[in-house]
Amino acid sequence: MTIARLHTAYREIRRATEALCGGLSAEDCALQSMPDASPVKWHLAHTSWFFETFVLEPGLRGYRPFHPHFKVLYNSYYVGVGERHPRPERGLLSRPSLADVHAYRAHVDAHVARWADAARADDATLRVFELGLHHEQQHQELIVTDLKHLLSRNPLRPAYVPAQPDAPPEPAQVEWIAFPAGVREIGHAGEGFCFDNEQPRHRVYLDAFRLASRLVTNREYLAFVEDDGYRRPELWLSDGWDACVAQRWTTPLYWEDADGRRQIFAASGMQELALDQPVCHVSFYEADAYARWAGARLPMEAEWETAAADVPQAGNFAESRRFQPVPTSRGAGLQQMFGDVWEWTASAYLGYPGYRPAAGAVGEYNGKFMVNQFVLRGGSCATPQSHIRASYRNFFPPAARWQFSGIRLARENRS
Amino acid sequence: MTIARLHTAYREIRRATEALCGGLSAEDCALQSMPDASPVKWHLAHTSWFFETFVLEPGLRGYRPFHPHFKVLYNSYYVGVGERHPRPERGLLSRPSLADVHAYRAHVDAHVARWADAARADDATLRVFELGLHHEQQHQELIVTDLKHLLSRNPLRPAYVPAQPDAPPEPAQVEWIAFPAGVREIGHAGEGFCFDNEQPRHRVYLDAFRLASRLVTNREYLAFVEDDGYRRPELWLSDGWDACVAQRWTTPLYWEDADGRRQIFAASGMQELALDQPVCHVSFYEADAYARWAGARLPMEAEWETAAADVPQAGNFAESRRFQPVPTSRGAGLQQMFGDVWEWTASAYLGYPGYRPAAGAVGEYNGKFMVNQFVLRGGSCATPQSHIRASYRNFFPPAARWQFSGIRLARENRS
Amino acid sequence: MTIARLHTAYREIRRATEALCGGLSAEDCALQSMPDASPVKWHLAHTSWFFETFVLEPGLRGYRPFHPHFKVLYNSYYVGVGERHPRPERGLLSRPSLADVHAYRAHVDAHVARWADAARADDATLRVFELGLHHEQQHQELIVTDLKHLLSRNPLRPAYVPAQPDAPPEPAQVEWIAFPAGVREIGHAGEGFCFDNEQPRHRVYLDAFRLASRLVTNREYLAFVEDDGYRRPELWLSDGWDACVAQRWTTPLYWEDADGRRQIFAASGMQELALDQPVCHVSFYEADAYARWAGARLPMEAEWETAAADVPQAGNFAESRRFQPVPTSRGAGLQQMFGDVWEWTASAYLGYPGYRPAAGAVGEYNGKFMVNQFVLRGGSCATPQSHIRASYRNFFPPAARWQFSGIRLARENRS
Amino acid sequence: MTIARLHTAYREIRRATEALCGGLSAEDCALQSMPDASPVKWHLAHTSWFFETFVLEPGLRGYRPFHPHFKVLYNSYYVGVGERHPRPERGLLSRPSLADVHAYRAHVDAHVARWADAARADDATLRVFELGLHHEQQHQELIVTDLKHLLSRNPLRPAYVPAQPDAPPEPAQVEWIAFPAGVREIGHAGEGFCFDNEQPRHRVYLDAFRLASRLVTNREYLAFVEDDGYRRPELWLSDGWDACVAQRWTTPLYWEDADGRRQIFAASGMQELALDQPVCHVSFYEADAYARWAGARLPMEAEWETAAADVPQAGNFAESRRFQPVPTSRGAGLQQMFGDVWEWTASAYLGYPGYRPAAGAVGEYNGKFMVNQFVLRGGSCATPQSHIRASYRNFFPPAARWQFSGIRLARENRS
Repeated sequence: MTIARLHTAYREIRRATEALCGGLSAEDCALQSMPDASPVKWHLAHTSWFFETFVLEPGLRGYRPFHPHFKVLYNSYYVGVGERHPRPERGLLSRPSLADVHAYRAHVDAHVARWADAARADDATLRVFELGLHHEQQHQELIVTDLKHLLSRNPLRPAYVPAQPDAPPEPAQVEWIAFPAGVREIGHAGEGFCFDNEQPRHRVYLDAFRLASRLVTNREYLAFVEDDGYRRPELWLSDGWDACVAQRWTTPLYWEDADGRRQIFAASGMQELALDQPVCHVSFYEADAYARWAGARLPMEAEWETAAADVPQAGNFAESRRFQPVPTSRGAGLQQMFGDVWEWTASAYLGYPGYRPAAGAVGEYNGKFMVNQFVLRGGSCATPQSHIRASYRNFFPPAARWQFSGIRLARENRS
Repeated sequence: MTIARLHTAYREIRRATEALCGGLSAEDCALQSMPDASPVKWHLAHTSWFFETFVLEPGLRGYRPFHPHFKVLYNSYYVGVGERHPRPERGLLSRPSLADVHAYRAHVDAHVARWADAARADDATLRVFELGLHHEQQHQELIVTDLKHLLSRNPLRPAYVPAQPDAPPEPAQVEWIAFPAGVREIGHAGEGFCFDNEQPRHRVYLDAFRLASRLVTNREYLAFVEDDGYRRPELWLSDGWDACVAQRWTTPLYWEDADGRRQIFAASGMQELALDQPVCHVSFYEADAYARWAGARLPMEAEWETAAADVPQAGNFAESRRFQPVPTSRGAGLQQMFGDVWEWTASAYLGYPGYRPAAGAVGEYNGKFMVNQFVLRGGSCATPQSHIRASYRNFFPPAARWQFSGIRLARENRS
Repeated sequence: MTIARLHTAYREIRRATEALCGGLSAEDCALQSMPDASPVKWHLAHTSWFFETFVLEPGLRGYRPFHPHFKVLYNSYYVGVGERHPRPERGLLSRPSLADVHAYRAHVDAHVARWADAARADDATLRVFELGLHHEQQHQELIVTDLKHLLSRNPLRPAYVPAQPDAPPEPAQVEWIAFPAGVREIGHAGEGFCFDNEQPRHRVYLDAFRLASRLVTNREYLAFVEDDGYRRPELWLSDGWDACVAQRWTTPLYWEDADGRRQIFAASGMQELALDQPVCHVSFYEADAYARWAGARLPMEAEWETAAADVPQAGNFAESRRFQPVPTSRGAGLQQMFGDVWEWTASAYLGYPGYRPAAGAVGEYNGKFMVNQFVLRGGSCATPQSHIRASYRNFFPPAARWQFSGIRLARENRS
Repeated sequence: MTIARLHTAYREIRRATEALCGGLSAEDCALQSMPDASPVKWHLAHTSWFFETFVLEPGLRGYRPFHPHFKVLYNSYYVGVGERHPRPERGLLSRPSLADVHAYRAHVDAHVARWADAARADDATLRVFELGLHHEQQHQELIVTDLKHLLSRNPLRPAYVPAQPDAPPEPAQVEWIAFPAGVREIGHAGEGFCFDNEQPRHRVYLDAFRLASRLVTNREYLAFVEDDGYRRPELWLSDGWDACVAQRWTTPLYWEDADGRRQIFAASGMQELALDQPVCHVSFYEADAYARWAGARLPMEAEWETAAADVPQAGNFAESRRFQPVPTSRGAGLQQMFGDVWEWTASAYLGYPGYRPAAGAVGEYNGKFMVNQFVLRGGSCATPQSHIRASYRNFFPPAARWQFSGIRLARENRS
């Protein structure tokens, strides 16, 4: 991409980030609900820090950082860049204020415009700039998931967006789509952007398998709950059972019991549990236990990617501003592969054969997290549509539940 | 006191509380730096909750609570009143907003005015109303100490108030004021308000003792630091040494090292360490170790109260808006007994002989905390002047350091 | 005392220690059930280390320590003596074996005999030697309490000693013995041995009070349990309630429910709860809550000592090898003041006015623990009879339950 | 295998287990050094429990368990069998004594003999009996590793076995053995025993790769240590770095510094670090960081198994009673593939495609642990020689260091 087109994308993405914060107060943006989640204000600043650190400082002659402390305050985890303010303490910063952070964003935007006008960026800087765009889109999703978690810890259960009615449900039966055995290629191919962890494209051998045509619904998951799924250790991985007991899981995150009625805390506040919506906010451990209970298994990421390769990348994304998965509309073939909920796979998050992280501090982006996590695929209702692709590898620890994460089942194909 | 005079005091105290928050943003008021400290916003709401719960609900006919959730959200620890929002989660509430909390205060103020106009309060309600005034003054001090702690966790080290220069120091030598042995009476006497823990007035037998004429200074404490006071376990209580090691204490809280120069974080931001100021932000453990190093001991609370009985209650209080102890001015007799810093005593916080907590939920105010704490006396630079008296018993756990707590030495008087 | 008489006492006390280990295997003696408790083997070695370190090394010319590592391995907490093997790791030592430890004891005994024969000890060494005798008696009690705790963690619930039947119970009504107000003297007086914490003898002023004539029984305590005593926070100190909830207390330690029948784990194994026995293995928090429920309070240590001054020091001690409190026999006046169970007082463990620890490392014996603990008085069924006296101050943290600790009530005496 | 041959193997394996405990005292066998490790006595009992529970109870008519409590005491993690005594409390059991446990073993042995004589076992029971043999061999290795850990926590650093001199070292240069790309088959094939996690045999696609001809030595690892390998976060996975900092790693486990000389704690006690021995007791995190530092990577398990398929299963095993890896002898091709140290692979421990755990409680043997662990291959100096094979999959969490775990490097093969 040319610098001009990238700068156009930059302006759109920055605007989209700020649009997510439209109705929020400075207080909403300052609080941190747990070490895993960051304040909205921090996301707004950190994404600007990324451009300042990796594009403006090396690429714009004479650039002076907006504030001498921000290099440390808004460095997430890049050891190569220097000190970092501790992650669990991001919620201790009433200053810089939200207004200061918006001024920081404006400062970075103005200098990025100067940098783009100069139009003399080398390829490496252009690549990092493009990485910054996708990086900011990732934080758009985190703004939604982290804010949702914060609001859920408030006894007032505030809403983030207005509720939108689901289309009348057309309950679709699961079909099992079959795929033959053979050597396949996975990993990113072609010209467009991808993260380093999607490469190199490489061969894998797959046995024949079948994939469920749609996501697991709340109705189906409720049957697991009511069949004592959270009280039967034989359905769980050992570490999963330990997490279930220690954290007292009895349902997915955000399910509540209101006078005997099942409710969920959604981006629009408390709602009745919609049975045809895909189940959401389950950990890998729950997804795995559900699959075992259902006599199936989770798909491997290579299976998922092979199956997704020819599916159009349409779906229920962040652009709908609903931030909640929706029932599938009846249709043939694979449904809901993109959007709605990230789909846990059975694949540990590891480097592909021949994987090499990028040089320099941005090489810390993905590679150093390749342990103790599982791959999720397909994007969610909080993912920007332009951000996702079939080769995209998301990853979270197996006990994480605050992302929009759900379940698609797979099976062997043995006759 | 009559209801009219109490209401006048109410208006002054409420105004004083709000004046403390004058320069603070909504973000400053929403954050919580540790479970022991509360957000400023919470203090603003909780003090209103106290009047709503203990005065308006029982005493104002037809009173309807401002918000149905506030009964739980702003209950600190009164089990008798019902559920409480967990203390460590007070910093998770972006809503109610600061503006909402100010509306809550205005609502309570308006109804208190109606209640005061009706002028039909029974004695018990009047007593609880008066308790509410002193309760709000206690939270005024906590607003300052909790906010200071929050700002100290911010790498920008923001100031809360402008710096005020100390008067030119007149270093005063310590004199040892002698008191004879005998049976004394301590505890509150007379007409004015006191907390239940200051009663009953009762007899104690005291050996002869001597009290230092002024507080321990930073200069004196620095000698302890430089004599390896924080590296010599023989100077410490065993639990104190464990705390020192576990929390890596090497100086009082808020001391910092800036390129080899000693600095402190004060309410006015970073400052050079002023050697003639009283040492502040030390735990009981440090006060006790310092005293042992100095060949002295901490005073017992009965000794302190006996000595303070005839000292005028003047000093450096919250009204100066300096929020920092100041050097003593040369003078005869006991100096700095009131204001500047709370003085750790050697007395565990226990009920006086014959102590009875008040009836009902306000009986939880003091009595249930009479274990694992030590008594501090005399008030500090963050205490309102009208709040303190010679019989006043403050109390904190022996490892607490974020209060304005310092040291006065005592000795036996054996010739 | 002369060195000859002290050496006679030494031999008796050392024999008594070993007699406590008579029926125990090397495995029984090697295990550690929690950081607060030590293996029996460690007690056997540490008491020898005390004589080796404080008597033989300074006092016996040419003495060579038994083993170069023991100086560190068996130092409990004497910082002045050097490094200490960490307390929570005392259960990691299969070597030195129990046989090695017995050889260590024999070695120390032989050299103590040589030292005693030389009969040239200075007064300071004699005093430390005598301290060592009382120190070893303290560890005799700890051998019993620590071993009982270990056996209680074993699902087989093994017995340590055979059961002995109680005498037929003669349920005695509580009488309230009255004591007048006035200035009293407490603290050790006279010639015999005492610990430094029993001194100096000093004056205290006491209001009039009444003391229960006997200990609280299991029957009485059961009424508290059945009146939901463990579910009513208003009866508890705040820290006590936190401990109750966190540790899930519902009865005293060692009570169990066997098919609906109340049982206790005793030194003789599982037994039916004997209703007339004194309640035992309660924390200060439970004792305090019980007293509040019963409309009484715990005695202050000065009250207890004043009352005990004229009571004969007879009772149910370790010599009975029963290691369980027994019902009181009907009688006039104060019963059970000595033996049976340590009696929690309302007094925090602090130094007496003018308290000075001994010089040198033995000065660490008592003084550095004078914080966060409460005083217990009177000795227990695991205390050697010759070890106790009216001025004796035992101390444990308020949540400790594995000692033989119980309750005597007190009241104001106001007509 | 026939029941008669299996019974012959049983007797040999049981004897081998007991031979490992030859020089140990009851105290040595009773202690537990950490929750991950078990007392030797527990291993002796648990392996007997396995035969009692899965063979004798279902398969020997009229069999009565040796002791009613052992079903719970010695159940490791089989939820399907019922309650389990908590793993971290295995070191709290002085009873049953070591002698009792030996009696238990004799009882089980006698009844297994009766069962074997009856010779009427069905195939499923025979399979479980054979599983029990391999299970006991696994615990033979754990007896060594757990005991070594216990002895290492003892300041006396006791030896378990006498030292054996290494053969004169013949430092072998690493050669890089190349393997071509293609579809391979891995997983157990053929008639002999295997665990369920080695099946099904299945196809994988492998890119071309090279494998180091021998293990990484202490000399090579020391260069990493001295090049600040433990102080450079850029070499580590993020979780690995956190573990390194939190646990203060600066060398492999059991390395010590003695007056500036590098020593290791070995099964024979303290020794000078032998530079030509394979490095041992490193975690996955250290192995991964070392490989990154060395410009290489760890092998995938499919690569390792493909390479090992034709290598003779000879090496330095438990039978040598050395329990320490030895320098390789110069030779052509792959050296040290079996024995010496378990080799960490880059492969997360997951089920093979189509994996099915066995039916019943023994199905908990492997499958429920398939998360958060990494695969190790090849056996160690504490593995019985008859226990290992090319398809064998061992697994431990990435921070585990107390097993005999080391490093073999791999590389891409791109020209």
